[in-house]
Amino acid sequence: MKLWNKEQQETSAIIEQFTVGNDRVLDLEIAEYDLRASKAHARMLHSVGILSDGEREDLLRELDRLLEELEEGSFTIEEKFEDIHSKIEYELTQALGQTGKKIHAGRSRNDQVLVCLHLYAKDQILEIKKLVRELFDRLIALSEQYKEVIIPGYTHMQVAMPSSFGLWFGAYAESLVDDLYMLNAAYRVADQNPLGSAAGFGTSLPLDRTMTTEALDFRTLKYNSVAAQMSRGRLEKMTSFALSAVAGTLSKMAMDVCLYMSQNFGFLSFPDELTTGSSIMPHKKNPDVFELVRAKCNRVQNLPNELTLITGNLPNGYHRDFQLLKDSFFPAVETLKSCLSISHFMFEHVQVNTNVIYDEKYDYLFSVEKVNKNVMRGVPFREAYRKVGEAIAKGTFRPDKKLKHTHEGSIGNLCNEEIKEKFNQAYRSL
Amino acid sequence: MKLWNKEQQETSAIIEQFTVGNDRVLDLEIAEYDLRASKAHARMLHSVGILSDGEREDLLRELDRLLEELEEGSFTIEEKFEDIHSKIEYELTQALGQTGKKIHAGRSRNDQVLVCLHLYAKDQILEIKKLVRELFDRLIALSEQYKEVIIPGYTHMQVAMPSSFGLWFGAYAESLVDDLYMLNAAYRVADQNPLGSAAGFGTSLPLDRTMTTEALDFRTLKYNSVAAQMSRGRLEKMTSFALSAVAGTLSKMAMDVCLYMSQNFGFLSFPDELTTGSSIMPHKKNPDVFELVRAKCNRVQNLPNELTLITGNLPNGYHRDFQLLKDSFFPAVETLKSCLSISHFMFEHVQVNTNVIYDEKYDYLFSVEKVNKNVMRGVPFREAYRKVGEAIAKGTFRPDKKLKHTHEGSIGNLCNEEIKEKFNQAYRSL
Amino acid sequence: MKLWNKEQQETSAIIEQFTVGNDRVLDLEIAEYDLRASKAHARMLHSVGILSDGEREDLLRELDRLLEELEEGSFTIEEKFEDIHSKIEYELTQALGQTGKKIHAGRSRNDQVLVCLHLYAKDQILEIKKLVRELFDRLIALSEQYKEVIIPGYTHMQVAMPSSFGLWFGAYAESLVDDLYMLNAAYRVADQNPLGSAAGFGTSLPLDRTMTTEALDFRTLKYNSVAAQMSRGRLEKMTSFALSAVAGTLSKMAMDVCLYMSQNFGFLSFPDELTTGSSIMPHKKNPDVFELVRAKCNRVQNLPNELTLITGNLPNGYHRDFQLLKDSFFPAVETLKSCLSISHFMFEHVQVNTNVIYDEKYDYLFSVEKVNKNVMRGVPFREAYRKVGEAIAKGTFRPDKKLKHTHEGSIGNLCNEEIKEKFNQAYRSL
Amino acid sequence: MKLWNKEQQETSAIIEQFTVGNDRVLDLEIAEYDLRASKAHARMLHSVGILSDGEREDLLRELDRLLEELEEGSFTIEEKFEDIHSKIEYELTQALGQTGKKIHAGRSRNDQVLVCLHLYAKDQILEIKKLVRELFDRLIALSEQYKEVIIPGYTHMQVAMPSSFGLWFGAYAESLVDDLYMLNAAYRVADQNPLGSAAGFGTSLPLDRTMTTEALDFRTLKYNSVAAQMSRGRLEKMTSFALSAVAGTLSKMAMDVCLYMSQNFGFLSFPDELTTGSSIMPHKKNPDVFELVRAKCNRVQNLPNELTLITGNLPNGYHRDFQLLKDSFFPAVETLKSCLSISHFMFEHVQVNTNVIYDEKYDYLFSVEKVNKNVMRGVPFREAYRKVGEAIAKGTFRPDKKLKHTHEGSIGNLCNEEIKEKFNQAYRSL
Repeated sequence: MKLWNKEQQETSAIIEQFTVGNDRVLDLEIAEYDLRASKAHARMLHSVGILSDGEREDLLRELDRLLEELEEGSFTIEEKFEDIHSKIEYELTQALGQTGKKIHAGRSRNDQVLVCLHLYAKDQILEIKKLVRELFDRLIALSEQYKEVIIPGYTHMQVAMPSSFGLWFGAYAESLVDDLYMLNAAYRVADQNPLGSAAGFGTSLPLDRTMTTEALDFRTLKYNSVAAQMSRGRLEKMTSFALSAVAGTLSKMAMDVCLYMSQNFGFLSFPDELTTGSSIMPHKKNPDVFELVRAKCNRVQNLPNELTLITGNLPNGYHRDFQLLKDSFFPAVETLKSCLSISHFMFEHVQVNTNVIYDEKYDYLFSVEKVNKNVMRGVPFREAYRKVGEAIAKGTFRPDKKLKHTHEGSIGNLCNEEIKEKFNQAYRSL
Repeated sequence: MKLWNKEQQETSAIIEQFTVGNDRVLDLEIAEYDLRASKAHARMLHSVGILSDGEREDLLRELDRLLEELEEGSFTIEEKFEDIHSKIEYELTQALGQTGKKIHAGRSRNDQVLVCLHLYAKDQILEIKKLVRELFDRLIALSEQYKEVIIPGYTHMQVAMPSSFGLWFGAYAESLVDDLYMLNAAYRVADQNPLGSAAGFGTSLPLDRTMTTEALDFRTLKYNSVAAQMSRGRLEKMTSFALSAVAGTLSKMAMDVCLYMSQNFGFLSFPDELTTGSSIMPHKKNPDVFELVRAKCNRVQNLPNELTLITGNLPNGYHRDFQLLKDSFFPAVETLKSCLSISHFMFEHVQVNTNVIYDEKYDYLFSVEKVNKNVMRGVPFREAYRKVGEAIAKGTFRPDKKLKHTHEGSIGNLCNEEIKEKFNQAYRSL
Repeated sequence: MKLWNKEQQETSAIIEQFTVGNDRVLDLEIAEYDLRASKAHARMLHSVGILSDGEREDLLRELDRLLEELEEGSFTIEEKFEDIHSKIEYELTQALGQTGKKIHAGRSRNDQVLVCLHLYAKDQILEIKKLVRELFDRLIALSEQYKEVIIPGYTHMQVAMPSSFGLWFGAYAESLVDDLYMLNAAYRVADQNPLGSAAGFGTSLPLDRTMTTEALDFRTLKYNSVAAQMSRGRLEKMTSFALSAVAGTLSKMAMDVCLYMSQNFGFLSFPDELTTGSSIMPHKKNPDVFELVRAKCNRVQNLPNELTLITGNLPNGYHRDFQLLKDSFFPAVETLKSCLSISHFMFEHVQVNTNVIYDEKYDYLFSVEKVNKNVMRGVPFREAYRKVGEAIAKGTFRPDKKLKHTHEGSIGNLCNEEIKEKFNQAYRSL
Repeated sequence: MKLWNKEQQETSAIIEQFTVGNDRVLDLEIAEYDLRASKAHARMLHSVGILSDGEREDLLRELDRLLEELEEGSFTIEEKFEDIHSKIEYELTQALGQTGKKIHAGRSRNDQVLVCLHLYAKDQILEIKKLVRELFDRLIALSEQYKEVIIPGYTHMQVAMPSSFGLWFGAYAESLVDDLYMLNAAYRVADQNPLGSAAGFGTSLPLDRTMTTEALDFRTLKYNSVAAQMSRGRLEKMTSFALSAVAGTLSKMAMDVCLYMSQNFGFLSFPDELTTGSSIMPHKKNPDVFELVRAKCNRVQNLPNELTLITGNLPNGYHRDFQLLKDSFFPAVETLKSCLSISHFMFEHVQVNTNVIYDEKYDYLFSVEKVNKNVMRGVPFREAYRKVGEAIAKGTFRPDKKLKHTHEGSIGNLCNEEIKEKFNQAYRSL
């Protein structure tokens, strides 16, 4: 049941198997959008005189029926259908005969898919933003809860200066603000209606694209039909940048957690039931969840490159190559959401080691404090630095582990309220 | 002349050669920012009591002197200096002795570099936006100028439906709006002051980071010191997403131009002096400029991946690995700017073939028009489609090349005014 | 049913869902290898005194039973099993009690997976080589069949010099020789037995790894246990380089085909039943198969980068991150094989346009011929070149379309026999 | 001074600046190859009657003169030349008039560059192999020297099982064998003569390509002229796979070193003069060299992707895009060589901590030893495993730190001789 089958033509089964792809499975993600967009399209066709009142009502009723089936979970894309679009057209034609065929006027599978992808991206970005907020809130709460707990800060993986769990948790929270900026930008890209661009060059039918734009709650149109067509691949890529941004934050955080859970650090732990053991080493408590968050997010960070390789150097106009994009894009979205959720879940159970700093290998952390104290007494920085260096070399350096950091964003003044305010502004700014 | 040289230590020349990198050259890009940030830092140190009135004045005067040298072009980073930061500290110490050393109080090379990179990114993004606007204006002007010129539209690289130079030029213009959204997001990321985060964990000195934030005209602080440190690599990556977005648009446009300049299309040409010949084939007029735009922009699109590979799976805290980022980042910015400029320049001289459509191989373009006409007369789409298919198969199809497309974003209604308005909104929205 | 479950520990269902991955599905690919490697391991444990005669016989019998089930298609990995390794151990323990548990002595899931992956890679590389040979033979046959058919050769996408279908088909054939070199290298990497490295650090049991190496028909051992463990990710990456090499050849060939099928070239076509139509344009015959070959092979070319991003900057030793590798690796292997098969299938039905060259837009192709003729008469090249250039500029140039190219690898002397010999040598050289 | 300048044509300075690229600098790397290939070409042109005896002698003499200049270091590519090829032709024409122009007969800049790149790749691969051998020898020597020194082995970054410096150093040595396989494959790809393919479609001149193949010491020809042209980009990519393989080994090793130098591990150190200090923290000894090895090698691992993005989806035939490849390829080769050298240098000075294992946090390392001892006494593995697990949980587990590992590739039997033999075979196998 292919839309493009002509009587005299029989596509070889070999070809079919090679080309069919994974659309039947993936398209359940966008079934709702195709139905909603079809309703908007039907109303618009009626308003410009292509459908009669009765045809409009018939189509809307059938589309609503399918939407109900979808909500109930009884909607399926059977094997004989290539994709969601063939399935819906089949259902309409079965129920309504010639009227069912009329809904295809003034549109093409190209803009049908495009509008679905734009609606999908919008919804998914909003969902991801929600999950980002939940993780943000958790991290800020942990930052506040453990703001007194000093840990070593590292540079070059060398013990460097005093840090704190307040700083560490809060740092990943504030980093998420940057990711919101990217998510908002991707949302803006998605929030432009491509419906009506047909196969990428518009149509001679007198469509009213402004009407479908409003009906589908798009902020504006992707006006130019060729531009609308070119958004295939572009939309996914812009969104993938935002996914990659969030994934980068999670991946780095997961690396920190895995390191901090190592016996060589021992900064963090999790309850036994949230770690896994070893088939051969009875004493192990492995950070599998964060290893997989790290790995999955590293794979998500590969998405922009994958999309670029698939679409690179293709001239304008639709190419079948684009079919593969959904196959890369949808799973990445799901992966990122699950990584956000599980990170949040894990951080509800994280256990913090409050005694890290008393290990003597961390004494040198406090050398810069000494330098700074002398600076405040008027010693030039380079002088003060030289003296502490000498004391360390001679073994006479004694740390003072009481810290008094006061400036914005320091151990003693985390500015979590300001960070929350910045997050909230970014969250709402669409 | 390394800041970290201690008397008893002599770094092997081999090591030095391997580690020195390209900073002396690259850092001229950020010299101005280091001087400006140093001025802000000096004023702030004075305001919190670390510098005396006289010390502040001395430092500001010397920094202004260096800024003047820079503007005049007499400023250089000599071989004995590792980077711009060593050079400036050397100059200050030469001129002011102990006072020169005091400017390093409460900061580290880490946040010195960070603040430079943030200021650099902000300026470069604004420059790129300006170049994008110039190209946008040119494309819209061409779209208007050639809106009557019909060309074939392709899908699957097959002749598909009528398009126009109005649509084609306009499509790339509208696509640039998406890129503005990404540039704006990157700007937001850059517009957060990291100065005062020192080596990534803040300092015990009572800095006033809000003061330097205002002095350097940042919209807000990157508060958390660890978050500020983590912006190394992240800032570049977020910016690289935006660069990659613009590069993707240019690269695709360049591919179209190269194809359209082929004798097999013949849609576009350029004056002889803007193309190149062949060392062996006397008749060739090669689109080297657009081939290089394509290639260079494809390389720019690799930047996010390069940055991710360099920074991936590194735990928080500074690593020397970050030194390499400038080496990837700065040239990509310059490349993209030159590609924007040259594309604009070329499109000031583009020659359009206004007779493309009269070649009979393009007759079938008009088959969908026929289908649509019948649809408007009440024939169901699938029926109308079947009939035209039959006529084509029988060889009885005759095209009507007069087009009347009226909907938003179609050949007859390009909506360039609306697209300009959308562009302007995005341009100003920071 | 996890191997590492301890009584007092209950892994949260949330954790399980996040971590379980796709192994149950993917592992059917390696079930046979795990059974064969288990047999070799059991024999070896017996030979070093860890298993009794009876235990060995029991284990071999049960493993053979499972191998039979696998061959018959009745073998499944039920939901309660995490992966193939848990499943097999469960079966053995069910059937043999304590004896079933003994097979785990001296090995770990790490080297179990490793040996499976090495055996899998070896088999897959051989299969791919066979498919490459089939395609190679087809291309050479087409090169011979159409060696007289002249087509334009392009540089910069500009009509440049005479080429031929003999050259074009043959070029992709000869390119496959390079890909064989990479496949052979990957095979060498895979042909080293990691079994016995246990969790990556060997074991105190007196294993005889040379014995399993011979039993499993490996050319040599990956001796060092840490090196064996590090081959996780490395093996896949080395193989992915070879996959990427083949994919690069196919992708470029597919691009050529799509272009040559365009009405603007019209060099190649395929029977209707091997192309697809359009839902909106009745006259289209789209090269979907080659578009998908192109896109899928571009995705395969992304595999090395994906693997590098996942494994990059991880210190030595197993990490759970590696679980994701199969999920990227196995489908890429399947994709590449299907692209090789379908390309071969399509080229069994390719239709060649033998009249391409008579279009007058290709006249200038023959300008270099003229230049060369004059060179043979003693005119210096640059002189000859200038004269033809002038004739073209004046419009007095007249082409002579009879070609006489004689050197190795030219239109008149394709050297397909030599290319076949080179291919055969590379094919057999392992 | 462009080869393709025609009198009536003046390329705009803007265009020139954009297109000129970095060839003048990069081409010094291949000047020698262009001269040698030109000599071979001249001899061949003489042998087929295109050059007279005197012309041949004149050309050979002048080419030898330029080779001498090159060796002496007095050869330069002045600003007025676009690249090495223009420079050499200019020199020949200055010295020999018309004879100088004749050398261009039967070749194009395309195959001139191609043959240079193939010769360059061959030499560089051999150089890299030599550096790999030096590093291999060093690692094997260290493995032998420290084979008694036990360190913890990690899985999931958790303390897992006993390992040793013998295993650790030896593992990276044996990994280099895999990299040799890839280097050899890349060498095979490079060892095919493309000279004579002209602009990618051969020539009507009666060249004798077999003669130049022998003269330039190529193993075989890239016969098909289109295949030869397609090796542009392919050659670099195949070589980049091999570079990436070596870089992956070095990068991982560098990550280990950085981690092991951290105070939290303390396994390795280097003399002060080979590490660097901090501008703000007097006690730091930073592993900058290995951080840069890691970062640089991660960038090298990006090369295959960069080349794929630049060349992806380009149809066959030369495109100016290829000009950019040298700019990515040559520096990556240099980077990799310097990373190999410096790693070797550093490992000549590495200091090993022989007391690591006596820290009690490593006691659990020995739990599997206990399990295995019981297995050897006949206890089923899973039983033995359960008991040790219980002892650990109760705190009654006592480690026995005397190890007796005997199997191939284990702590007590490193098989370094066998690994050396395998390395040597791979090294010589071309």
